Amino acid sequence: MERRPGRRAEEEGSERGWDAHETMAGKADEKIVVEEAFKDTEVPPWRQQLTARALVSALLLSLVFNFIVCKLNLTTGVIPSLNVAAGLLGFAMVKAWTSLLERCGLLRQPFTRQENTVIQTCVVASSGIAFSSGTASYLLGMSSLIAAQSDGGNTPVNVKNLSLGWIIAFLFTVSFVGLFSIVPLRKTMIMKYKLTYPSGTATAFLINSFHTPKGAKLAKKQVAVLFKTFCLSFVWACFQWFFAVADGCGFVSFPTFGLQAFKQRFYFDFSATYVGVGMICPYMVNISLLIGAVLSWGIMWPLIETKKGDWYSADLSASSLHGIQGYRVFLAIAMMLGDGLFHVVFMLIKTTSSLIANSKQESSTIAPYESDSSSPDFNEDQRTLYFLKDQIPNWVAYGGYIGLAVISIIVIPFIFPQLKFYHLMVAYAIAPLLAFCNAYGCGLTDWSLASNYGKFAIIIFSAWVGLEHGGVIAGLASCGVMMNIVSTASDLMQDFKTGYLTLSSPRSMFFSQVYGTAISCVMTPLVFWFFYKAYPIGDPTGSFPAPYGLMYRGIALLGVEGVSSLPKNCLALAILCFVVAIVLNLIKELLQHFETKHRIYRFVPSAMCMAIPFYLGSYFAIDMCVGSLILFLWERSNRQKAKDFGPAVASGLICGDSLWGVPAAILSLAGVQAPICMKFLSASVNQKVDAFLEEGS
Amino acid sequence: MERRPGRRAEEEGSERGWDAHETMAGKADEKIVVEEAFKDTEVPPWRQQLTARALVSALLLSLVFNFIVCKLNLTTGVIPSLNVAAGLLGFAMVKAWTSLLERCGLLRQPFTRQENTVIQTCVVASSGIAFSSGTASYLLGMSSLIAAQSDGGNTPVNVKNLSLGWIIAFLFTVSFVGLFSIVPLRKTMIMKYKLTYPSGTATAFLINSFHTPKGAKLAKKQVAVLFKTFCLSFVWACFQWFFAVADGCGFVSFPTFGLQAFKQRFYFDFSATYVGVGMICPYMVNISLLIGAVLSWGIMWPLIETKKGDWYSADLSASSLHGIQGYRVFLAIAMMLGDGLFHVVFMLIKTTSSLIANSKQESSTIAPYESDSSSPDFNEDQRTLYFLKDQIPNWVAYGGYIGLAVISIIVIPFIFPQLKFYHLMVAYAIAPLLAFCNAYGCGLTDWSLASNYGKFAIIIFSAWVGLEHGGVIAGLASCGVMMNIVSTASDLMQDFKTGYLTLSSPRSMFFSQVYGTAISCVMTPLVFWFFYKAYPIGDPTGSFPAPYGLMYRGIALLGVEGVSSLPKNCLALAILCFVVAIVLNLIKELLQHFETKHRIYRFVPSAMCMAIPFYLGSYFAIDMCVGSLILFLWERSNRQKAKDFGPAVASGLICGDSLWGVPAAILSLAGVQAPICMKFLSASVNQKVDAFLEEGS
Repeated sequence: MERRPGRRAEEEGSERGWDAHETMAGKADEKIVVEEAFKDTEVPPWRQQLTARALVSALLLSLVFNFIVCKLNLTTGVIPSLNVAAGLLGFAMVKAWTSLLERCGLLRQPFTRQENTVIQTCVVASSGIAFSSGTASYLLGMSSLIAAQSDGGNTPVNVKNLSLGWIIAFLFTVSFVGLFSIVPLRKTMIMKYKLTYPSGTATAFLINSFHTPKGAKLAKKQVAVLFKTFCLSFVWACFQWFFAVADGCGFVSFPTFGLQAFKQRFYFDFSATYVGVGMICPYMVNISLLIGAVLSWGIMWPLIETKKGDWYSADLSASSLHGIQGYRVFLAIAMMLGDGLFHVVFMLIKTTSSLIANSKQESSTIAPYESDSSSPDFNEDQRTLYFLKDQIPNWVAYGGYIGLAVISIIVIPFIFPQLKFYHLMVAYAIAPLLAFCNAYGCGLTDWSLASNYGKFAIIIFSAWVGLEHGGVIAGLASCGVMMNIVSTASDLMQDFKTGYLTLSSPRSMFFSQVYGTAISCVMTPLVFWFFYKAYPIGDPTGSFPAPYGLMYRGIALLGVEGVSSLPKNCLALAILCFVVAIVLNLIKELLQHFETKHRIYRFVPSAMCMAIPFYLGSYFAIDMCVGSLILFLWERSNRQKAKDFGPAVASGLICGDSLWGVPAAILSLAGVQAPICMKFLSASVNQKVDAFLEEGS
Repeated sequence: MERRPGRRAEEEGSERGWDAHETMAGKADEKIVVEEAFKDTEVPPWRQQLTARALVSALLLSLVFNFIVCKLNLTTGVIPSLNVAAGLLGFAMVKAWTSLLERCGLLRQPFTRQENTVIQTCVVASSGIAFSSGTASYLLGMSSLIAAQSDGGNTPVNVKNLSLGWIIAFLFTVSFVGLFSIVPLRKTMIMKYKLTYPSGTATAFLINSFHTPKGAKLAKKQVAVLFKTFCLSFVWACFQWFFAVADGCGFVSFPTFGLQAFKQRFYFDFSATYVGVGMICPYMVNISLLIGAVLSWGIMWPLIETKKGDWYSADLSASSLHGIQGYRVFLAIAMMLGDGLFHVVFMLIKTTSSLIANSKQESSTIAPYESDSSSPDFNEDQRTLYFLKDQIPNWVAYGGYIGLAVISIIVIPFIFPQLKFYHLMVAYAIAPLLAFCNAYGCGLTDWSLASNYGKFAIIIFSAWVGLEHGGVIAGLASCGVMMNIVSTASDLMQDFKTGYLTLSSPRSMFFSQVYGTAISCVMTPLVFWFFYKAYPIGDPTGSFPAPYGLMYRGIALLGVEGVSSLPKNCLALAILCFVVAIVLNLIKELLQHFETKHRIYRFVPSAMCMAIPFYLGSYFAIDMCVGSLILFLWERSNRQKAKDFGPAVASGLICGDSLWGVPAAILSLAGVQAPICMKFLSASVNQKVDAFLEEGS
């Protein structure tokens, strides 16, 4: 669910922008001359990088991406990297505006890549909050809706009903702290350690390429392709709507592989969004999802269901965590925690060893991870010059962090009385360390582990507070505190890297991040509220199961109740999953280091990805595999074209389908029903229904 | 329904092979040198043109195309030109076989274009019979099934139940006569008058191009594309099957534009066949179909239905010809007859004037329609040489015609006692004249009017015999006699033209035509029987409405009963349609002659095409327009590729979808049901059904 920044972004495993590594490799030559191409282009001062048109574009795009991220959060929680879409759309909007002005002779300031970076940064920051605000995970997990599903801990003190007011207040209190926690280290990380930040780098190359003549031409074509698929996808989503008057109707209930497979949640649901997501995510992510689905819904659940009445009581409701649903949720959690633990430990080791290596050659300027471009050249000179031009004083950073932390420590106990000021003081004391770890690790590997830190926070704080004092709510709230700090810190550093490579001022980057965060603290709850009111969110068989709501609450329950509440044999299976996750990761790392010939490590499935379908079933995994298949065939028939236009097509599919969510939600709020039900009946049921309809007429 | 040969082939209006005219124009330069390219290739003697592999391939392809034509006949009666598919598949089969032998070192005789022509001729002859055998029109019209729908004339003497035996016997008696009727005139028509036969010429160019190295490469690619779309289309048809357990289920009942539009038969039924057919047929044909559908089902029928109880009795069954169905059938017939009359008269005028012009410059060698290539050149010399090499003696032709006609006159009254020997003598006396007219007109314009002659035969003979003596059956049988003669005559002449241009011997052409005819006389009834037993053929709301069954019987009823049996105002409307058809054609001809700048005549809809949806509704017209749209977009994005591969894609779509008909029919015969019903219910009905199902569970 961790959306960004970075290579795996936890569950989704997608790259930020184009394939970061390929881009890096492919552009190695270009890198040397890129600033030569911009030699005659003036870099505007930082205030002029924050133009009104950039801020307006960023606002509009933030709204669009907030909708998309919110919808994805509420359906499966798998969120791909939307940077290409954001980059292309941002470019298209401002370019269209400046071209129009130019034709009228009114253009005063040309469109610069710094402005483009500002837009990108703001949109990325804002959709980052849309994800880490937890409206579909920790916040939703507090609601009585989810609490009712999870039996244990369904007491007033462990339930907090959602309301727009406190959500916005909470987000404002926790979202800005992270920005200040890491600012002073930017020079160390970007210039001294020269961390790669693959996604940030890829975004910078994308933006740089847009502003060279050849790149602009390709970008225009990509925008056209994106727009076409956007329209198609929107129309398709609209068409689908007409046939889905009620549950069990429409394309989302299409038993593509037969009714039996449909019951086990194996079907293709014709969702353009997830086909697009599948086109963006690496092949192995989609295959891992499918493997997870087959293992769980194809093998494990049917086997466990044969033990009904033995392992768990037969008269439990289908959604009870003491029944089959418990196995689904806790095995998924175990797998995710195992994966998370491995990565956190692995990252700590890597960070420590890298820091030790750095301190040994302290005064040397040789960077550990980008040694090829270490010699001072024109690019470097220019970038360093502009990066150092506008400073953010350290006292602003320290003052900001302490001030905001104090406010937060005072305010949050009012929102969540379950969380005391000393809990928060502990959280804010260790947060900067974790934020640094995450930002540093992300710079090395492109992985942000924010949601893992959040999950560990849930377990620690909910156990600390205890069930009777509202440990569930305390755990979930502390998850929000931790996740926001850790996630925004690594986001900001990524953006500094992008800014460094596009000669954007750190000040404009910082401001744009603050702007994006502020926008999103208001917008995200509003967008969520819109869906929340229009649809039954969190219903595991509905269109918006929001799997992480129950998942996160399950983690908190583990924290407060321990493992005693799990159904029979669930603990043993969960430990197995936990171990499998660690072993899979271990195998992958070992193969990556010691088997470089065939690169078999590429074919080791990701444990995190395997865990998601445990709860949801495989329908979206099948959609995503269809996306992979399309991309694979396209690449086989025309590799270059697939590479140039694949991400644009995918973005179009995602945006179009997701945006139909807006009119659909409005129609739903207005009580407008679709006119037709496309229903799927077995042959025998159909005969009965036909007889019934005959009779009635 | 008239399938071939030719430009408009009556209702369907598709070209034979690639766009005949464009091909002609495009190949104008090539024409001069085409025989140069084959200078070193030996032309085998006629017996060696009829190789075993060619005859086997032709047999297999005939079976395939018989299925396709039969299925199309029974669904809408719109049959596109399958020549490209036949050409490509024939080439692929023999080429694969010879390549295999060559690799094993066993190849004795290389694959020649003459063999290819033999295959093509045989397949075309055989699918010609599949159409003109009338299993879906005049023969079906005799059955009690159709008689029951049409009220009038439903007496034992006017009904003849179908049985395999007499159908095969009838076809054998009537199908060969036509071949002999026109043979003596081949030299006059091909060499003296140099008639163009655009379809035959296009086929010849196609075959010639296959056998030049560059053409072979393109042909291989086309075969690959055809095969791919074939597989896709087959899989799609198979997928659809699973969701269509009963009537009203599955994709064929998809209310694409809403339930209201569906009731008026406006929907897209996801049929790959008709999308493919739409891709082959000219744009204007598809648009004409749509115009006809909108005029009839969108405007006329709803208006007439408001007069229910006034214009016609309200308590008639929905399929009664005295009710709304009568308007549908007779207005369609009127439009078709108007169109047919115009074309017959127009063709007679054109033929006469052309013959007069020819006789004026009698001894001159200048051909009237191909004057550009009139000067004797190498092509001409070669072609004339081989065309004159093998002769078919005139006594064979005359003897054959008279002998077969005598047999026919003796045998047919045994099958249809309603038809006396003097009726048949008259028919066989005037048939050669009509056959000549049709073959000559087809050579000029590429239009074969066989089914028009057949319809006039129905009216004349059924009126002559009279209702009480079985005029309906007599009329329909005489239609078969007339249509077969006229249609095979023009087919044969087309094939002589193809043979002339590929240096194939007239003897091998004639033999191949006889072979194809013989195959089809057995195969067509068998294939029809297969469908007839597996499905409820002729049910106007089912999957196989076979519209021409009722249509042809309706014409016969007009002949025996006159116009008195029509419902109120039907005659007036029918006359209106008749006049509209003539006027439309007149406008088109006038525009074609006097307005050459914008060529507006291209946008005049075809009356024949407008009439088909009167009975059927517009679903297939919408499919076909989708095909047109695909082709249009494809042409816009890549004209050359669309031209090269469009017909291959279309053929693949048609063949794949149609061939699924075989396993589907077998499953249906074996009583295997599809497992699922994809049903479409209105919101209110869905609520009722859900309540009913809830109750039952």
